[in-house]
Amino acid sequence: MKAYDSLEHLFGRLSTLEDAGGILSWDRDTMMPEGAADRRATVMATLSGLQHELLTKPEVAEWLEKANAEGDAWRQANLDEMKRIHARAVAVPGDVVEALSRAGSEAEMVWRKARKESDFGMLLPALQKVLDLTKESAQAIGEALGLSPYDALLDGFDPGMTQATIAPIFADLARELPSLIEAVIARQAESGPLPLLGQPPFPIAVQEKLGLQMMEQVGFDSRRGRLDVSAHPFCGGATEDVRITTRYEEDDFLPAFLGVMHETGHALYEQGLPKAWLGQPVGRARGMTMHESQSLLLEMQVTRSRDFAVFAAPLMAKTFGSASSWDAESLYRRMTFVERGLIRVDADEVTYPAHIITRYELETAMIEGSLALKDLPEAFNARIHDLLGINVPDDRRGCLQDIHWPLGLWGYFPCYALGALTAAQLFQAALKALPDLCGQIRSGNFSSLLGWLRQHVHERASSVSTQQIVADATGKPLGAEAYLAHVRQRYLEN
Amino acid sequence: MKAYDSLEHLFGRLSTLEDAGGILSWDRDTMMPEGAADRRATVMATLSGLQHELLTKPEVAEWLEKANAEGDAWRQANLDEMKRIHARAVAVPGDVVEALSRAGSEAEMVWRKARKESDFGMLLPALQKVLDLTKESAQAIGEALGLSPYDALLDGFDPGMTQATIAPIFADLARELPSLIEAVIARQAESGPLPLLGQPPFPIAVQEKLGLQMMEQVGFDSRRGRLDVSAHPFCGGATEDVRITTRYEEDDFLPAFLGVMHETGHALYEQGLPKAWLGQPVGRARGMTMHESQSLLLEMQVTRSRDFAVFAAPLMAKTFGSASSWDAESLYRRMTFVERGLIRVDADEVTYPAHIITRYELETAMIEGSLALKDLPEAFNARIHDLLGINVPDDRRGCLQDIHWPLGLWGYFPCYALGALTAAQLFQAALKALPDLCGQIRSGNFSSLLGWLRQHVHERASSVSTQQIVADATGKPLGAEAYLAHVRQRYLEN
Repeated sequence: MKAYDSLEHLFGRLSTLEDAGGILSWDRDTMMPEGAADRRATVMATLSGLQHELLTKPEVAEWLEKANAEGDAWRQANLDEMKRIHARAVAVPGDVVEALSRAGSEAEMVWRKARKESDFGMLLPALQKVLDLTKESAQAIGEALGLSPYDALLDGFDPGMTQATIAPIFADLARELPSLIEAVIARQAESGPLPLLGQPPFPIAVQEKLGLQMMEQVGFDSRRGRLDVSAHPFCGGATEDVRITTRYEEDDFLPAFLGVMHETGHALYEQGLPKAWLGQPVGRARGMTMHESQSLLLEMQVTRSRDFAVFAAPLMAKTFGSASSWDAESLYRRMTFVERGLIRVDADEVTYPAHIITRYELETAMIEGSLALKDLPEAFNARIHDLLGINVPDDRRGCLQDIHWPLGLWGYFPCYALGALTAAQLFQAALKALPDLCGQIRSGNFSSLLGWLRQHVHERASSVSTQQIVADATGKPLGAEAYLAHVRQRYLEN
Repeated sequence: MKAYDSLEHLFGRLSTLEDAGGILSWDRDTMMPEGAADRRATVMATLSGLQHELLTKPEVAEWLEKANAEGDAWRQANLDEMKRIHARAVAVPGDVVEALSRAGSEAEMVWRKARKESDFGMLLPALQKVLDLTKESAQAIGEALGLSPYDALLDGFDPGMTQATIAPIFADLARELPSLIEAVIARQAESGPLPLLGQPPFPIAVQEKLGLQMMEQVGFDSRRGRLDVSAHPFCGGATEDVRITTRYEEDDFLPAFLGVMHETGHALYEQGLPKAWLGQPVGRARGMTMHESQSLLLEMQVTRSRDFAVFAAPLMAKTFGSASSWDAESLYRRMTFVERGLIRVDADEVTYPAHIITRYELETAMIEGSLALKDLPEAFNARIHDLLGINVPDDRRGCLQDIHWPLGLWGYFPCYALGALTAAQLFQAALKALPDLCGQIRSGNFSSLLGWLRQHVHERASSVSTQQIVADATGKPLGAEAYLAHVRQRYLEN
C-alpha cells in the first residue's frame, strides 16, 4: 500500500475507535447505572490508550514523511490534518493520555454529586488530578509545537487560535459589555413585566415531543440521531449517529427548548459533513469555534428572532394546549429577555460573553499557575460580580455549573464566545445572500438557510482553516462587529 | 514484567474491549437509530479485529510458553483459560474475524426486517454469508484443536462439550418427549379451561415496574445494571453493568415477566462472579450451559413453582390493580400451562427441549453441509411437526424467530437444553441443602438460594470445568434424571 493509503486506512480505524468512545461517553451520561462508573472509566481509558498507541507507531511517522497528496486539495488537506494530529499525539506519553482519560471520567462522576450538593471541596481532589495531567499534557504539546501551554490547549479545540488573538477581542467585549447590558436592561424595563407563556407544569413528555418536532423542522435527520436527557446538555454520539441531550424543568419549557435548538445546531453540522470523507481527519468539523457558531447561529440568530416566534408560537400553544395568552410577541419577549443570570447555558446572548470572559480569564490563570484550584470559587464569584454585577450564592450556580473542567477541557470556553461572533457574521452574510430568509423563517421553512450553511460551512469540513471558511462565506475576516451590530439592532433599536 | 503478569495485563485490556463491544451491542439492539447500522457494523468489526490483533501478537505465544502459575489453583486455571482462548484465536485469520463480526451485524439488521415481514428469502443472502464465514472459522479452529467443525463451535460456548456427549442425551430426550407431552396435556385437560389473570390491557409501564421490582426481590443489583426493551430478549452489557432486556405485549404480562426472570437468572450469575478476578479469563462465567442453567433455574425451577405463585400472585394483583380473580393457583396454572407452541422463548419447560433438539439437528446439518440454507424453513417446519405435532404457519414463527444464526451463533442452542438439565439437578441439590427453601420462596425470600448459588456456581467462575462444578454441587455427573423427575413430579403427580 502507498504511504498515503496506509494513512487513510489507519485514520479510518482510529475514527471507529473514536465512534466507540462517543457512544460509550453518551451512554455514561444518559444510561449507565452509577455502580458501573469505575469500570467504565477503565474501558474508556483503554480505548484512548489504544488510539494513542496506534497513532504513535513508528511506521506512522515514516508514512507521514513519504506520503504525497499533491494535486488534490482535499487529500492534501487530509494529510496536513494527519500531520497536525500526529504531532500533538507523539508529544504526550501514552500513560499520560490514559491517566487523563481515567481522571476525567472519575472527576465527572464526582462532579455530578458535588454539583448536586453544591460542594466544590468534594470535587477539588479529583479536579486537581485532572488539572495536573492537563498541564503536563499541555506543556509537552506546547514544547513540541512551539506554543505556550494554554495556546497548545486552544490549538486542540480551534487549530491556529492563540491567546494573542483572543485577548484583544475579549478586552474589547469586556469594555463594551457593562454599558451595553445596562442600556439593554434599562430599555427593557420600559416594556413592563414579562408576559406569561401558558400555564406550568409543562409535562416532560410534551416538551420532548416539541423538541423532536422542531429538530426535524429545521432539518435534523432522526434516522441518524437521537434526543435524550442528561445532567448537562451535549451533542455527542458517533458518525452517522448524532445524539443530543437536554434537561427538562416542568416549570418552564423554554430552557430545555432553547437547549435543544442549540444542540441541534451542532447536530446539523455533524450530519452535514461530506459523506465522501467520512472517518477521515479532513472530513471532520472544523474545530470548536465553528461548531459553536453553528449551535449559536441556530439558537441565537434564528430561534430567538421575532420571525421565528411568529412561526413557533402557535405551534407551541397547540402542543401544550394552554388556554392562556400565547402570542408571538410574548414568546419573542421571553426569548430575548436579558437578565444578569447565574447559569451560562441559560444566559441570553447579551450577557453570555461575560460568562465566557470570566471562565477564559480564570482558566488561563489555572494553566499558568497563578490561580490555585482551591481559590477558584472565590475568584469565579468575584469576576462574575465585576462583569455582571450579581452575587453567586453557591458553587452549584457558580464554578460547579459546567462539566468542562472536570472533563479536562481547559481551552474550550473561548470557542463559545468566538462562536457567537462567527454566528453573527455568518448570519449577516446569509441574510444578504437569501433576501427572503426572514419570510421563510416566519413560515417555518429552514431549507434555504440549511442549504447555505451546508455549502458555506458544513461541506467544507476541515478542508481549509476556520478563518478561511469565515472569509469565504462572509467576505471579511472574523471580528466582533457583526455581533455588536446584531445586539444593538435587536435590543436597542427594534 | 514476568510472563504471567504480562498475560494478566493483556487479558485485562482485552476484557475492557469486550466490555466496550458489550455496551455497543446493547446500544445497537435498544437505542441506535436505524441509519447508523452500517457504521456501527464497521465500529464493532474494528473492535473485534483489534482484540484479535492484540491476542495474536507473537509475544503472547512466548509468554504463554514461559508463564508459570504453579502452586496457585486460580492462577493456574487462569493460565489454562488463556491458553485455550489463544489457541482458538490464532487458528482464525484476523480478516475472517472482522468479516464475521461485520456479516453478523449486517445479518442482524436484515433479520429484524425479515422477521417482521416473515420473509426468510430476504434474510437468505446475509445469512449465507454468516454461515460460510462461521464454517470457515470452525474448520480452522477444529483443525488446530483436533475437533470436528461443529465440536469446535460447541467448544466456543461450552468448553469440552462434544456432539458425542450430546447426541445420546438428546436421543433419550427425543424418545421420552412425545409420550411425556401427550400425558401431561391429557392430565391438564382434566382441570378444565385456564383461569383468567386480570383484565388486559396491561400497561407496559406497569409491567416494567413489576419486572424491576421482582428483579430486585431476587437479588439483582440495580446499581450495576438495567432493564430495557429489545426485539429479542437478552442479557448483555459489560462487567459491573449487566443489562437485560425484554419485550412487552399489552394483552398478556406473563411472557415479558417470565422473560425478565429468565434474563435475571443470567444477570445474577454475572453480578455474582468473583470481584478479585474481574476482567481475567478465570473470572468469567463458566460457559453457556452453566449460564443457561442459571436463567432456567430461576425461570423454570423457581418462578414457575407453586411456592413462587403464592408469593407473587397478591403482589401482581396489587401492581396491576385488577378486580378479577387473581389467586396463586390460577397464576401457577398459567405458568405451568403446557402447550404445543411455536415460539421457543415462550415455550413451557416440557416442550422446550423439542425446540432445542430441532435446532440442534438442523444446525449440525448446516455446518456439515448436508442441509442447504434455502431448505432450512421446510426442514425446520417438518421437524417441529415431528416432535411437537404442530404446523408452522410462517417463517416469523418458524426459523426466523431466533437471533442466534444471523449472529453466527451456531453451536449455542444445545446449551439451552443442557442448561435445563443442569438447572434441575442444581435445584434438586439446593432443595436438599436448604430444607426450608420452599417456605422461603413462598414468603419472597430468595437470599439463601442466591447464597447457595453464589457459593456453588457463581463464585467458582471458570476455575474448574462445568462438569466439576455440577459434580461438586450435586454429588453426581450431569444427567437427565433430575430434569425428567422434576417434570413428572410437577406435571403428572402434584
